[in-house]
Amino acid sequence: MLISHFSGTNALTRFANWLEGQHFSNIEILVDSHTCEHCLPRFRDAIRWQGDPLVIPAGEESKGLEQAMRLWSRLLDCAADRSTLLINLGGGVVTDLGGFVASTYKRGVPFVHVPTSLLGQVDAAIGSKTGIDHGGIKNSVGTFSSPLALVIDNVFLDTLPQTEYRSGMAEVFKHALIADGNLWKDICTISPDGRLSEEMIERAAGVKMEIVEQDPLEKSQRKLLNFGHSLGHAIESVALVNGTPIRHGEAVAAGMLMESWISFQIDRLDEGSWMEIRSVLTKYYPRLTGGIFLEDACLGYLRNDKKNAGTSIRMVLLEDLGKGVVHQEVSEQQSRSALQAYSGFYPPNE
Amino acid sequence: MLISHFSGTNALTRFANWLEGQHFSNIEILVDSHTCEHCLPRFRDAIRWQGDPLVIPAGEESKGLEQAMRLWSRLLDCAADRSTLLINLGGGVVTDLGGFVASTYKRGVPFVHVPTSLLGQVDAAIGSKTGIDHGGIKNSVGTFSSPLALVIDNVFLDTLPQTEYRSGMAEVFKHALIADGNLWKDICTISPDGRLSEEMIERAAGVKMEIVEQDPLEKSQRKLLNFGHSLGHAIESVALVNGTPIRHGEAVAAGMLMESWISFQIDRLDEGSWMEIRSVLTKYYPRLTGGIFLEDACLGYLRNDKKNAGTSIRMVLLEDLGKGVVHQEVSEQQSRSALQAYSGFYPPNE
Repeated sequence: MLISHFSGTNALTRFANWLEGQHFSNIEILVDSHTCEHCLPRFRDAIRWQGDPLVIPAGEESKGLEQAMRLWSRLLDCAADRSTLLINLGGGVVTDLGGFVASTYKRGVPFVHVPTSLLGQVDAAIGSKTGIDHGGIKNSVGTFSSPLALVIDNVFLDTLPQTEYRSGMAEVFKHALIADGNLWKDICTISPDGRLSEEMIERAAGVKMEIVEQDPLEKSQRKLLNFGHSLGHAIESVALVNGTPIRHGEAVAAGMLMESWISFQIDRLDEGSWMEIRSVLTKYYPRLTGGIFLEDACLGYLRNDKKNAGTSIRMVLLEDLGKGVVHQEVSEQQSRSALQAYSGFYPPNE
Repeated sequence: MLISHFSGTNALTRFANWLEGQHFSNIEILVDSHTCEHCLPRFRDAIRWQGDPLVIPAGEESKGLEQAMRLWSRLLDCAADRSTLLINLGGGVVTDLGGFVASTYKRGVPFVHVPTSLLGQVDAAIGSKTGIDHGGIKNSVGTFSSPLALVIDNVFLDTLPQTEYRSGMAEVFKHALIADGNLWKDICTISPDGRLSEEMIERAAGVKMEIVEQDPLEKSQRKLLNFGHSLGHAIESVALVNGTPIRHGEAVAAGMLMESWISFQIDRLDEGSWMEIRSVLTKYYPRLTGGIFLEDACLGYLRNDKKNAGTSIRMVLLEDLGKGVVHQEVSEQQSRSALQAYSGFYPPNE
């Protein structure tokens, strides 16, 4: 798993120089309709590439077998061989799908991830997981496969809408809370309309890289990355089924609030830390309303969570700002209480 | 790549004992319509398994995305998780497809290969390649992924028709010719209607295991296994396109004859060895006739062979009975001559 990382100042230029020294028979670039418009022109210039990109429609619906089949066929049509390089330029859908297609085309061709969203830069593009959605289940088909290089350049975030940026911020908060108390302190100074420095993004990405390197196959510590995702994923799923989808980051923020509250309730986390988390996250993320907190529906998803062991619900909890603990048993009643308590985390007049 | 091997006497029973000591949440068995009838009852008894198997139609047509999608969905339906074991009980189609589905379902669940054809036992099930056919190209989508265990038991060959058995024998001849002169001597004593001993099958499988272990990703020596497959694959493809398909083993046998002849023509192989190969293989495999030796069509396939480098045709040639050499440049004219010479390898009155 030897990956070349390019991040920080002039990351894109340094990647372009590196690429010139490689010997690929061919380079193909995968984009979605958004990154084709907003990111490809700049990327094309940087690496001096003049081909036709592979384009998928923007959105989670593209992350399925239909597009995978189209891409495999396109690669066959352009006679891509094992020394063809696929560059995935886009958000999580592009990198997950592109990584899956590359890792299975002719049993694997090299690929590079160039994440263009904050979520992608600090989370989705890191960790060697590829995947597509099948049978209504996210990432039910995929591989563990590493990109040859990862390029994290702030330049692609310029055109990202603030709502998307804030959704990605949830994973930055998460990385800080589970593993880096100093990063937590630093990012708490950013206003909800502000942007992270290159250095903060590198540190947030670094948290994930380090955890993944220690536990690539998610046997133990990698589960830390699921903080906020047990209850967060449950409400995201209920909202989706109810026809009122919410952003992943918003769901994870709500999940982190509830799971921090549980940590406090069972005396793992002190009150001061809980109040700080509550103060920061409720300022950043408006209260979610509507039917997404239907307890029974959420409990149904919680019981089927892949992080569970046997019949008991397991979550990642916090014991400090910057220290998560995996594999904590949480009762159904505690989960229900957290769902009921959520609204009260916000000031009553909001 | 730590695989448990069970072969030779009582392989199936020893595997059943091993399996009892493992802790899988669930076991699923993949079969095709033939092995469901001929092999599953005995296998079921051996491991005391009572579930419903996953069944695909017999034949190469099943080795595509349609069946892969069905199997992923079936695994989701029965709530298979990462500690579910998939056992692939069948020939090359079952092990290639089942291996691909298992290696990509939830980013990989453990699987076991129980090859039930001679071809599977000495070749297809060994070497950690999984794959499906897509876009009209064999194995254009797949992974490198190792089974947890491999079970080679003669008991499954009892019901295999002799034509299938003889097709599988071609790969045994191949393994002997490229790497094991003593095995060659031993198997030459088997009549075209005879069967190999368990020990011979183990030795033939062992040749592949050793080569694959040394070069899992086919950078160099693994290419030895392509002996007979350059011209063999070309005539197999032409026959398929012409609507008169021939068995893989028959095509490979013809390919080995022609590629041995080329080895002799360019003075790599001595005349005595060539005459011995010719005598044995023509006794075993009747002359192929019909339009499959259309030179131009065969040359078209040869030029697109994935073993080539740049524009020149590369083949595996022999320098002794039991010694192959990879990456040998062969001209188009030499390939044409071999295709023209093939019929003459057989006695004129046949």
